[in-house]
Amino acid sequence: MIRKTLSGLLILSSVAAHAQQNLVKYVRPIIGTEKMGHTFPGATVPFGAVQLSPDTDTIPYEKNGKYNGEVYKYCAGYKYEDKTIVGFSHTHFSGTGHSDLGDFLIMPTQGPLQLNPGTANDPGSGFRSAFSHQNETSQAGYYKVKLDDHNITAELTTSQRVGMHQYTFPKSDESHIILDLMSGIYNYDDKNVWTYVRVVNDTLVTGYRQTNGWARTRTVYFAMTFSKPFKSYGQKNYDTRQVYRGFWGKFDQTKNFPELAGKRFRMYFDFSTAANEKVKIKFALSPVSQEGALRNLQQEVPGWDFEAVKKQAQDSWNKELNKIVVNTSENDKINFYTALYHAFVNPTLYMDTDGQYKGLDQNVHKAEGFNNYTTFSLWDTYRALHPFFNLLQPARNNDMVHSMLAHYDQSALKMLPIWSHYANDNWCMSGYHSVSVIADAVIKGVYKGDVNKALDACVTTARHRSYEGIGYYMDLGYIPAEKSGVSVSNTLEYAYDDWCIAQMAKRLNRNDIYEEFSKRAGNWKNNFDSSIGFMRPKLADGSFKKEFDILSTHGQGFIEGNSWNYSFFVPHQPEQLIEMMGGKKNFASKLDTLFTMHLPDKFFADTEDITREGIIGGYVHGNEPAHHVAYLYNWAGQPWKTQQRIRMILKMQYKPTADGLGGNDDCGQMSAWYMFSSMGFYPVAPGSEQYALGSPSVKNAVIKLENGKSFEVEAINQSDKNVYVQKVLLNGKAVENFTLNHSDILKGGKITFYMGSKARK
Amino acid sequence: MIRKTLSGLLILSSVAAHAQQNLVKYVRPIIGTEKMGHTFPGATVPFGAVQLSPDTDTIPYEKNGKYNGEVYKYCAGYKYEDKTIVGFSHTHFSGTGHSDLGDFLIMPTQGPLQLNPGTANDPGSGFRSAFSHQNETSQAGYYKVKLDDHNITAELTTSQRVGMHQYTFPKSDESHIILDLMSGIYNYDDKNVWTYVRVVNDTLVTGYRQTNGWARTRTVYFAMTFSKPFKSYGQKNYDTRQVYRGFWGKFDQTKNFPELAGKRFRMYFDFSTAANEKVKIKFALSPVSQEGALRNLQQEVPGWDFEAVKKQAQDSWNKELNKIVVNTSENDKINFYTALYHAFVNPTLYMDTDGQYKGLDQNVHKAEGFNNYTTFSLWDTYRALHPFFNLLQPARNNDMVHSMLAHYDQSALKMLPIWSHYANDNWCMSGYHSVSVIADAVIKGVYKGDVNKALDACVTTARHRSYEGIGYYMDLGYIPAEKSGVSVSNTLEYAYDDWCIAQMAKRLNRNDIYEEFSKRAGNWKNNFDSSIGFMRPKLADGSFKKEFDILSTHGQGFIEGNSWNYSFFVPHQPEQLIEMMGGKKNFASKLDTLFTMHLPDKFFADTEDITREGIIGGYVHGNEPAHHVAYLYNWAGQPWKTQQRIRMILKMQYKPTADGLGGNDDCGQMSAWYMFSSMGFYPVAPGSEQYALGSPSVKNAVIKLENGKSFEVEAINQSDKNVYVQKVLLNGKAVENFTLNHSDILKGGKITFYMGSKARK
Repeated sequence: MIRKTLSGLLILSSVAAHAQQNLVKYVRPIIGTEKMGHTFPGATVPFGAVQLSPDTDTIPYEKNGKYNGEVYKYCAGYKYEDKTIVGFSHTHFSGTGHSDLGDFLIMPTQGPLQLNPGTANDPGSGFRSAFSHQNETSQAGYYKVKLDDHNITAELTTSQRVGMHQYTFPKSDESHIILDLMSGIYNYDDKNVWTYVRVVNDTLVTGYRQTNGWARTRTVYFAMTFSKPFKSYGQKNYDTRQVYRGFWGKFDQTKNFPELAGKRFRMYFDFSTAANEKVKIKFALSPVSQEGALRNLQQEVPGWDFEAVKKQAQDSWNKELNKIVVNTSENDKINFYTALYHAFVNPTLYMDTDGQYKGLDQNVHKAEGFNNYTTFSLWDTYRALHPFFNLLQPARNNDMVHSMLAHYDQSALKMLPIWSHYANDNWCMSGYHSVSVIADAVIKGVYKGDVNKALDACVTTARHRSYEGIGYYMDLGYIPAEKSGVSVSNTLEYAYDDWCIAQMAKRLNRNDIYEEFSKRAGNWKNNFDSSIGFMRPKLADGSFKKEFDILSTHGQGFIEGNSWNYSFFVPHQPEQLIEMMGGKKNFASKLDTLFTMHLPDKFFADTEDITREGIIGGYVHGNEPAHHVAYLYNWAGQPWKTQQRIRMILKMQYKPTADGLGGNDDCGQMSAWYMFSSMGFYPVAPGSEQYALGSPSVKNAVIKLENGKSFEVEAINQSDKNVYVQKVLLNGKAVENFTLNHSDILKGGKITFYMGSKARK
Repeated sequence: MIRKTLSGLLILSSVAAHAQQNLVKYVRPIIGTEKMGHTFPGATVPFGAVQLSPDTDTIPYEKNGKYNGEVYKYCAGYKYEDKTIVGFSHTHFSGTGHSDLGDFLIMPTQGPLQLNPGTANDPGSGFRSAFSHQNETSQAGYYKVKLDDHNITAELTTSQRVGMHQYTFPKSDESHIILDLMSGIYNYDDKNVWTYVRVVNDTLVTGYRQTNGWARTRTVYFAMTFSKPFKSYGQKNYDTRQVYRGFWGKFDQTKNFPELAGKRFRMYFDFSTAANEKVKIKFALSPVSQEGALRNLQQEVPGWDFEAVKKQAQDSWNKELNKIVVNTSENDKINFYTALYHAFVNPTLYMDTDGQYKGLDQNVHKAEGFNNYTTFSLWDTYRALHPFFNLLQPARNNDMVHSMLAHYDQSALKMLPIWSHYANDNWCMSGYHSVSVIADAVIKGVYKGDVNKALDACVTTARHRSYEGIGYYMDLGYIPAEKSGVSVSNTLEYAYDDWCIAQMAKRLNRNDIYEEFSKRAGNWKNNFDSSIGFMRPKLADGSFKKEFDILSTHGQGFIEGNSWNYSFFVPHQPEQLIEMMGGKKNFASKLDTLFTMHLPDKFFADTEDITREGIIGGYVHGNEPAHHVAYLYNWAGQPWKTQQRIRMILKMQYKPTADGLGGNDDCGQMSAWYMFSSMGFYPVAPGSEQYALGSPSVKNAVIKLENGKSFEVEAINQSDKNVYVQKVLLNGKAVENFTLNHSDILKGGKITFYMGSKARK
């Protein structure tokens, strides 16, 4: 009877699988590709190591010896407004405000060989091609476009570590695949430190590319196979100088020469193609070695069935998307599932199938008992993305914390990551927010490793006196304005991070640490100028800096924000902030002013990374520092304003169009904000179990937890007008304080919001 | 009684050990450091991976945008005629005619920190120091010098993979160790591709250096420990540009910052020192990783006893030197043991203690069952050095053949090494002489691997049509002069190499290969112009090139030699060459002319790599192509002339002084020629078991073979005047044909030369 039982189980699991809805159809990777979203439209799988996507331009970092502002536009390599595609490269950031990557650009062409990309205005001048959005399909895990100049249809899909290309050629004896080893995002003359290529046989090429970009010391290895042998191949070397050229006389190294190396070269592979013949490429990446890339390729995509790989990619997305089933308008489903998609693009897997990866110390390590991840945009993502992972992806977030602690172990500085990618830290932005991510994972029981060791890493990082004014901060309780251009935002963010450490220490009964960091957690008060009611830079002598503009974001002591937004950045102690700002009423009225003020024009020009539409009154949603601010009305006794503001932000800042994002998606932080807020709750202070309630925009959402339980959000009487919460029940019991605990969600159950068109004061 | 037996054995082996003579005292590494020898005076162990030696200058490759001829002088980093030392670096070629290496220059200084090397004319302008040869000691495995400007005594020794420095400082609060990561031999702006350094703690630093020099893609990893903690440290970065400098604001990266990377920077470490305080450094190299370097360091030199490491180094030399015990004049003992020393510097060990190394394919490999070597200067060393190894170092030569075959396996080109070092082939010089080395090792029973596989690798290499005219050579039997500037030397060298393949094939009963390559072995005839009696470039139409100068070395179809020297390059078929040159008498008289002619001055200016003294008549000993020529008189029926010429060359070309070498030592080839010839025999055609007899200059030599047997050379009635051999006995039996077989030597025994002052015609 065992047989019968087993087959019974099989049927059940099969039914469960089929119960999954097709949610991939709601994902529009194209959202955010216009203006400031900085997302990419190409193919990737959840948290995949490969992001195979079209680049519409590869702007050099400098123009006539000066910084070229255009470079910023191309953080993701693709701009919706562009008319030509240069090729398809294998690594892309999603939504960042700084650029890098764009490795291994591939372009199929036919006709006389062209090895220069040509210009956007005259695509015929090079290998690039015109395209139109009519002939473009961008889905989760799949991208397709017609390359008009070459009459070639390009299709892309991926597994975790392998990009798969399928190019449908016309009949031609001059079909080519260009492998551009010079191209890259954030490109400049010296970015390509070294490139090495081995043509192993007529279908296999391996090598590596070493760059000095945003990641200072970065090497990506590859293995590339063709579905049919090339007829011939070659290279053109653009190095200005290669001192020892003695051996160039021994061989013709430009044609059919299999051992290539240099700083700047492009390769090509020639084919004859029949009409509509498909030439496919599998292109695997590895952080470790050519052999690792080849092993990844063989293990992940052994065959040549493009449709099967595409299906696997889309199935893997569908599995992730089905973790939340929402009932909402069709447009909002598009917004929601695209947000879910964007939230699950980063961090990215950073290890071979055998667990090996290159560490921050540039040594090869093996991830034992966890999957190693990279691309940690922590100043952005500690706020809502990692808390979202603690809800939806606890196993992965556990791995991510393990990855951050491995980074710490490998750090000669003995610091947790700040903004790390590909075995490098670029130390971008402020704070030491790994601490928040770790504390949230520890407090919520997600991190399964040695929690005391994790706490020690946080403490060591937070005591790193030589980093960004920490020494002053430790000695004085603030950073003197003379010593740092971002003295106030640093103090505010350190204070919050310190509170996170204190919470963790409390949980682990490490009282000395709890006390030390609880004290530090109050340091934000040192920058609060009660005479004006705003956070303000303080000089070494203890006086506040005289020249000061609460609206400007430049030179005022803040990073990516002004005092108006940053003055509310005390997510861990809102009650005390309210008190210092003159009590609940004054505080709420100050929030009102923020959301309704009329900003002078110059302010818009000033603000980084966001469109004009990314600002509501003086509230900047396109940057992160104020992401929690709308929820602070709850503490000021006016939760209905939280509800109204949240619904307004959801509506104004997220649209199902290419230009639908009001600012950089920032590796999923903007998307995570959207999902939390549209489900009616938000983690104002990660490191706490508590969520603040807002106003759900969905009618219903069912969250399927990794522990097998489900948590349902229901909004009774939901509509665009009914933005005000009349009543909240958790499993039938009234919730009075507009909070929800993470542990309550984990138990499974249901929260019911009763909505109405009038504020319930 | 077991105890007694054991202790008896111990005494015996102890006696055997003590029976070794102190031969290290005859080694003068300084020989060849002046003029063209290109040897280095520093410390190394036999075939060691580290060559720790002073650099007197590091000349940039270019001067005012043009090639700087001076760069050639500094192939070994040290010129005896220089007055200052820039520092001590860890890798050096010995005797090459092209340069590279010079990695990780260390200089101890005191007083105000100087991070520029300064100039030779004004050493006080930088960290370099004046020195004098009076205060310099250069021994096998040990080097010492007083650095006058800093009042510091520097001592160097090494293990296989670790360089050990001992610096005796004066009392100073401003003592420094400079680690110059920009300096290098064959230096130019772009040579430093990338450098990465990690200051792990206050006594340990690790990192790597990646260069694009003569080796195109080369990375050397290091681990460096100090015997006492440094007080502080820092760097100066000389990169013209580093695009992303955002993080420079986060830290002061110039001081006490432990994670460094860039193209060009120098580091310093600060100490306070008492009078005569010794600060020691252990500096380990690895071809694989920082961890590998650290493991090498810990395993090879766990302690800090400089004298013990020095003793171990010198003991290891003494063990090798005692393999031949010669009785000869004191000066000739110096010449002989210095030659033995120089012969055992290269090839160099190229793997970590765990057997891992980086292969030609840039992948990490593990040497299974052999030690992996690099630095194969095969155009030079196939002639006498590898045959010398087959006699004295068969186990190591077996490993070297294994290393060459591993190179072949890793080669995308499917070629055996031409001139390979550090996981690269620079394809320098002509021929495919790996084939000769392999054939000689197979024929002499030294190579213990799969001989058929070895033969296949030789055949595949020799059939590589796209390499240096091989296709033409295969089709036409020669290389048309229109197609190559070195068409004749290539044809001659290929023909000899092909003969080697044929000999190996014959031994292995591979008859098709034997026939194919026996035929090719006669191709030298196609370049012999019988109308003038010289080798001469031939055009594609089969006619000889009209404009032709038999004396010039440039543009005449030869590499590093003229037709006069190269026309005798048929080492494998001298009888046939003699016939084509008009019989024995004409041939001998042509040899006479070669040795006695008066060259026009312009010829000296023309000839590369050698001093004027490196030429005898028209015979060029300082370059290799004619190294066998003096022995050809044997075949022409005038062996007494071989005897006389050999003794003359020994005397004129090798002197126990800094300027004692008439040309580049060429990784030991010149030295191997010296040792063979001074013992009275020489391998005219490696790939054959046969040696040609010359005239020994020693009174007696005892060769201790690895098989436990000894072979003795005795010269009765030896003197400077008695250069003519009257009679030769092998184990008491007369030798009539002036040859000696390798197998006869292996059996052990004695060859006795009876010498006299008159030629025995």
